[in-house]
Amino acid sequence: MTITPASLEALDVDPAFALHRGGKLEVRSTIPVRNADDLSLAYTPGVARVCTAIADNPELVNDYTWVSNVVAVVSDGTAVLGLGDIGPAAAMPVMEGKALLFKEFAGVDAVPICLDCTDVDALVETVVRLAPSFGGINLEDISAPRCFEVEDRLRSLLDIPVFHDDQHGTAIVALAALQNAARLTGRSLGDLRAVIAGAGASGVAVTRILLGAGIGDVAVADSKGVIYTGRDGLNPVKEALARDTNKAGFTGSTEEALSGADVFIGLSGSTVTEEAIVSMAPDAIVFALSNPTPEVHPEVARRHARVVATGRSDFPNQINNVLAFPGVFRGALDVRARTITENMKVAAATALAAVVGDELSEDYVIPSPFDPRVAPAVIAAVAEQARLDGVARR
Amino acid sequence: MTITPASLEALDVDPAFALHRGGKLEVRSTIPVRNADDLSLAYTPGVARVCTAIADNPELVNDYTWVSNVVAVVSDGTAVLGLGDIGPAAAMPVMEGKALLFKEFAGVDAVPICLDCTDVDALVETVVRLAPSFGGINLEDISAPRCFEVEDRLRSLLDIPVFHDDQHGTAIVALAALQNAARLTGRSLGDLRAVIAGAGASGVAVTRILLGAGIGDVAVADSKGVIYTGRDGLNPVKEALARDTNKAGFTGSTEEALSGADVFIGLSGSTVTEEAIVSMAPDAIVFALSNPTPEVHPEVARRHARVVATGRSDFPNQINNVLAFPGVFRGALDVRARTITENMKVAAATALAAVVGDELSEDYVIPSPFDPRVAPAVIAAVAEQARLDGVARR
Repeated sequence: MTITPASLEALDVDPAFALHRGGKLEVRSTIPVRNADDLSLAYTPGVARVCTAIADNPELVNDYTWVSNVVAVVSDGTAVLGLGDIGPAAAMPVMEGKALLFKEFAGVDAVPICLDCTDVDALVETVVRLAPSFGGINLEDISAPRCFEVEDRLRSLLDIPVFHDDQHGTAIVALAALQNAARLTGRSLGDLRAVIAGAGASGVAVTRILLGAGIGDVAVADSKGVIYTGRDGLNPVKEALARDTNKAGFTGSTEEALSGADVFIGLSGSTVTEEAIVSMAPDAIVFALSNPTPEVHPEVARRHARVVATGRSDFPNQINNVLAFPGVFRGALDVRARTITENMKVAAATALAAVVGDELSEDYVIPSPFDPRVAPAVIAAVAEQARLDGVARR
Repeated sequence: MTITPASLEALDVDPAFALHRGGKLEVRSTIPVRNADDLSLAYTPGVARVCTAIADNPELVNDYTWVSNVVAVVSDGTAVLGLGDIGPAAAMPVMEGKALLFKEFAGVDAVPICLDCTDVDALVETVVRLAPSFGGINLEDISAPRCFEVEDRLRSLLDIPVFHDDQHGTAIVALAALQNAARLTGRSLGDLRAVIAGAGASGVAVTRILLGAGIGDVAVADSKGVIYTGRDGLNPVKEALARDTNKAGFTGSTEEALSGADVFIGLSGSTVTEEAIVSMAPDAIVFALSNPTPEVHPEVARRHARVVATGRSDFPNQINNVLAFPGVFRGALDVRARTITENMKVAAATALAAVVGDELSEDYVIPSPFDPRVAPAVIAAVAEQARLDGVARR
């Protein structure tokens, strides 16, 4: 297709295209530059005194530049939404969207950085070189299993927060919803046996946060069925999952493991049958989080399960990362945390769950992204936990 | 020094520090995100349609993201103002300042990127990986001679404008001022013999633009004196300069070459004596551009020279890069130029010179940065020349 003004107009009939025309972000000055005096302070010669002070006292960069308020939203475009490996340019609308959500929901300045490299070493090296410009790194839409190594290595190399949102944003919000679903049904996490469909970025991270939060048992399935120790061809990440999960020793399909299970969490893009939902324990909890098509239609699931959540805004209980990532970074940046600990993620989940309070019901286990109480609750919990964990620098 | 709130307050007595508190930039959304409907267009699921369209038609990234309006202001912090190699963090206030000038003077969104690497290969590789996120690359405060190779390689590897402002911004504004100074004194550039003190980034670039514009002769001096073919220990950049300059065959000091010269351009941080200025030809033109201390005090120079310019705002004829770089990039981005040609730089200079028009005088050879006619004139000239040179994509 040749791009002509006419063909753009045709695209713009779709309101998503019309909205995206020219992009969704801008950079603005926060200070006036009306005359030569302003210029002589904001730029040469006045700026030289600020540069010299930072050269002498490197931590002043956090006080006299925007660095400590800016997060890089970094992607290589290999796992964009459900679209897969569409490359860095086509990933840009998502990263811009992420950046605007950072600002709108928590006042965090964020810059979309789509990288033209996919090798783990190259990604790590590039982000390390960029790091002096940013107060935090939000990794986004990098395919598994590379995303795990990229994040682990960056976390060890950098002393600023590094957070792969596809993993931990989803994990925080899912844990919050599960905490409330357990409370609604009079159980603790330790009482629950969960089955997770999907062993990609979000499946692994949700499993890890549930293990950390004391889930009774959890079995994780990939496209070949439930992961267990000794299964052929497991990569190192799945081998570790096999060791830490599936106490019950399932070796079959997701559906087989669901029989008698308390919780299903779908993060796979696959489907589960209505029969499998029927086979779950009483007061079953079903989070069918694949987008745009949940693993099981929420109205079907709701016939048999006590609590149903999806990733969609047109059904109750939307599990949306935007409930977590803006507040997590805002809280971490506010105290200049050198990292985001597991405790900080659990604290964010618990704070998010607590927003629901006494209004808890089957159709309200997680607040709306537009609930104004969400960000302040997450920010305060994350900042407080950073101090308790000794990773806050102020 | 330990940073305490009290010590910050002490710093903030300096208005430059007070102004810089919290940085000078922010990222903002250009679209509303008031409710779930807005979110479903700006982010999932609506954004996926835009991503898919760009994956199918890569050039649509310029229409439906901010990429075609964003310039990366990239530095490694090795040659910051007159401060030298102060590192990437301490360079950030300058790069933020540059970014805000891009926006204030020409509506270009710019993101400061301070890199934690100084090796030429590493710098080139990193900027190439970042390139899908930006519509142009403004290199800044990278020390010579590395800056030449970094720019040359990036220009050949990327199909977006790459512009080292320390070189070409200075060159454009100096050429504009010299065109007007020549006009004032009834001469053409071909009539003039110039001496340039300084063979760093700006010295080399000013020399190159003057040669391209037809200067009569130019001799370039570094700290060891005038550069000539056969001088010991010349690096490749200076060897090339020796070949292309100094028709008169000077082999001595800057002062010796100045005897009978028409033009002096100081870009060295060194000094020249009043006697050397006295020895110049009638109607001498002196641009003493080192900051904050010009090579010769402008009031001293003015006793003997017809036209004197400096880099300072507190004397007439300020040669300030902000007269060029915002409009150069705006013009190039407007037509989606794949590069910035030599012709486009000369066109920018000529347009800038023309703003002065009939008001031309000894104390007015270059317009003020706050003259509202400047940016539109530069933008139009650069865009037009890009079309004439066949590098415009629309």
